[in-house]
Amino acid sequence: MTDAFSYNPLARDGEARLGEVITPRGVVRTPAFMPVGTAATVKGMYPSQVRELGADIVLGNTYHLMLRPTAERIAELGGLHAFMRWPHPILTDSGGFQVMSLASLRKLNEKGVTFRSHIDGAYHEMTPERSVEIQGLLGSDIQMQLDECVKLPATAEEVARALRLSLRWAERSKRAFEAQPPGRALFGIVQGGDVPQLREESARGLVDIGFPGYSIGGLAVGEPQAVMLGMIEVVNAILPQDKPRYLMGVGTPDDIVEAVGRGVDMFDCVMPTRAGRHAQAFTRFGRINLKNARHADDPRPLDEESDCPAARDYSRAYLHHLIRCDEMLGSMLLTWVNLAYYQSLMQGIRHAIAQGRFDAFKAEVKEGWAKGDIPPRG
Amino acid sequence: MTDAFSYNPLARDGEARLGEVITPRGVVRTPAFMPVGTAATVKGMYPSQVRELGADIVLGNTYHLMLRPTAERIAELGGLHAFMRWPHPILTDSGGFQVMSLASLRKLNEKGVTFRSHIDGAYHEMTPERSVEIQGLLGSDIQMQLDECVKLPATAEEVARALRLSLRWAERSKRAFEAQPPGRALFGIVQGGDVPQLREESARGLVDIGFPGYSIGGLAVGEPQAVMLGMIEVVNAILPQDKPRYLMGVGTPDDIVEAVGRGVDMFDCVMPTRAGRHAQAFTRFGRINLKNARHADDPRPLDEESDCPAARDYSRAYLHHLIRCDEMLGSMLLTWVNLAYYQSLMQGIRHAIAQGRFDAFKAEVKEGWAKGDIPPRG
Repeated sequence: MTDAFSYNPLARDGEARLGEVITPRGVVRTPAFMPVGTAATVKGMYPSQVRELGADIVLGNTYHLMLRPTAERIAELGGLHAFMRWPHPILTDSGGFQVMSLASLRKLNEKGVTFRSHIDGAYHEMTPERSVEIQGLLGSDIQMQLDECVKLPATAEEVARALRLSLRWAERSKRAFEAQPPGRALFGIVQGGDVPQLREESARGLVDIGFPGYSIGGLAVGEPQAVMLGMIEVVNAILPQDKPRYLMGVGTPDDIVEAVGRGVDMFDCVMPTRAGRHAQAFTRFGRINLKNARHADDPRPLDEESDCPAARDYSRAYLHHLIRCDEMLGSMLLTWVNLAYYQSLMQGIRHAIAQGRFDAFKAEVKEGWAKGDIPPRG
Repeated sequence: MTDAFSYNPLARDGEARLGEVITPRGVVRTPAFMPVGTAATVKGMYPSQVRELGADIVLGNTYHLMLRPTAERIAELGGLHAFMRWPHPILTDSGGFQVMSLASLRKLNEKGVTFRSHIDGAYHEMTPERSVEIQGLLGSDIQMQLDECVKLPATAEEVARALRLSLRWAERSKRAFEAQPPGRALFGIVQGGDVPQLREESARGLVDIGFPGYSIGGLAVGEPQAVMLGMIEVVNAILPQDKPRYLMGVGTPDDIVEAVGRGVDMFDCVMPTRAGRHAQAFTRFGRINLKNARHADDPRPLDEESDCPAARDYSRAYLHHLIRCDEMLGSMLLTWVNLAYYQSLMQGIRHAIAQGRFDAFKAEVKEGWAKGDIPPRG
């Protein structure tokens, strides 16, 4: 443990990077997947379980936490780590993305954005300074600058305006962040939509300001995967090799291996947890829909070779039954299955990079997904 | 382990009994509380957790399981124990109670009851023979006869008619049960409403038929506790001392200690699990409503002296937050708290009977509940 935040590169395999993000609260092995703990809980999981799956870090949502139970209350209670019983690193977003997707009556100007809560309609103001203040009250280890993420499709002018505003907010965020204790990090966020020149402008602008890590935002919002990967290539050619890179809100297992192959280190996504509450299992055979009637009589587990008890010990017939009856245990088990799969995928990725066989690993996992599920006997 | 079902009395303290119900699948230490696993899951709990809390047996609901996923399907999948990953004893009800409370278009006659499923409207017939057949397909260790439980208030004539029908069904159930493998038990159910003479008639009739254990049904359905306890006294004066006695669907911690003091050995109730999904915690300080705003800033756990991590390690403020946000983890933690409390209460009861100080124990726990919750400091 050290008081400084740093990125320690350990190995390269093509563009894929093996490394460690070092924080006073612990080391994050990268490439890393961060389970999403929106409202100070990874839905349907005990925090000890999340840790046991191999997660080094979880994500908290500033927008949700500022509304309930409020950042001030969490600070009085000792910070987000103590509150949710997760003593390991936590990354928080800026709240901006959810302000734009969930809140109502939004008004955005140079200063920031005002909005009404989707819960009780109360009026709030979010500025770059306030976002950093909230994340500081939460005690977040890795914080995000407030940015404006425009919805695609948008005109190049609109995308350019938003990224330039985001760059000015990046500077203000960095200044506001200086008040915080050492060891924490603030990341700048690359925007620029699907326009390579604007992505470059955004990345260069952030590197000029200088951050201990960089996020790539505004992707996986409906564009084709090829567009997303193209933008990652443009951006990562500019971002410094000695700083971690976080692709926000991504994604499917396939998105993750492709982005790792283009130099991304950190990921978060609601997909494994949300899918787990909607009868979907992620496995080495690809995605399996447990709602499907073909599972009703299937005594086999999802994956008898898995280390995860939820994937190895419970029959598909039982999982199917729990889902049909809308039983909590169905969501609990499938969320567990999915987070275990994502963490095992990251473990496999890290191992492969260390051995210099990332491409072979990528081909193997894709082959497994393509083959699909093993049909029941008989 | 033995192939026989038996009751092994270990100690008496007044009317309170310490004993063991011995089944081929394991020993049930009595007095016992059986968590309710309605649809083949104790809601919000992994089966391993239920076991670790000290539960020797859980209850399954025949009505729910016959509709989904059906008894035949569970039998094909290896029985209810394998299906729900609970290798320890299971008790099932007859399905009759839920037919009368959940199903529609019920028609009852001497033969049995026909009804339509509350899920899909499908037509079903339930007879004493079919109930025993279903419970046999499930592989239940302790099965219940089909009975008719009349709703109170009812006339003495109506109560008498129902108990006499239930006695005839008891005989038919016993005959049907003879086809099952050794080691399982079928209990007769005492009915008779709130009429002492009818309770006596029912208990005597069942003892004449002869069962390896007796259930007391039709209580805790809205009558005052004193009426319930009076009926238990009437019935337990008749039931043989060398057979276990199960008070169906009861109840609060206070109901349980009072009924143990009158010679009851086994209990089941949805209260701890259902209350856990509705913000209620059972503790040695009594019932605590975590929805109450006074918990919002309270950093204390529910009970720092509890062995249960959910009661000991999470702040009231966090539990309150989870409940306000309708987070699954809130239900998961409070269900855990409540089942842990119920099991620790049973453990305390058994220990007290063994030491011949049941009355002192009862006074102590009641004093704790009466004192109420410790207010927050400041």
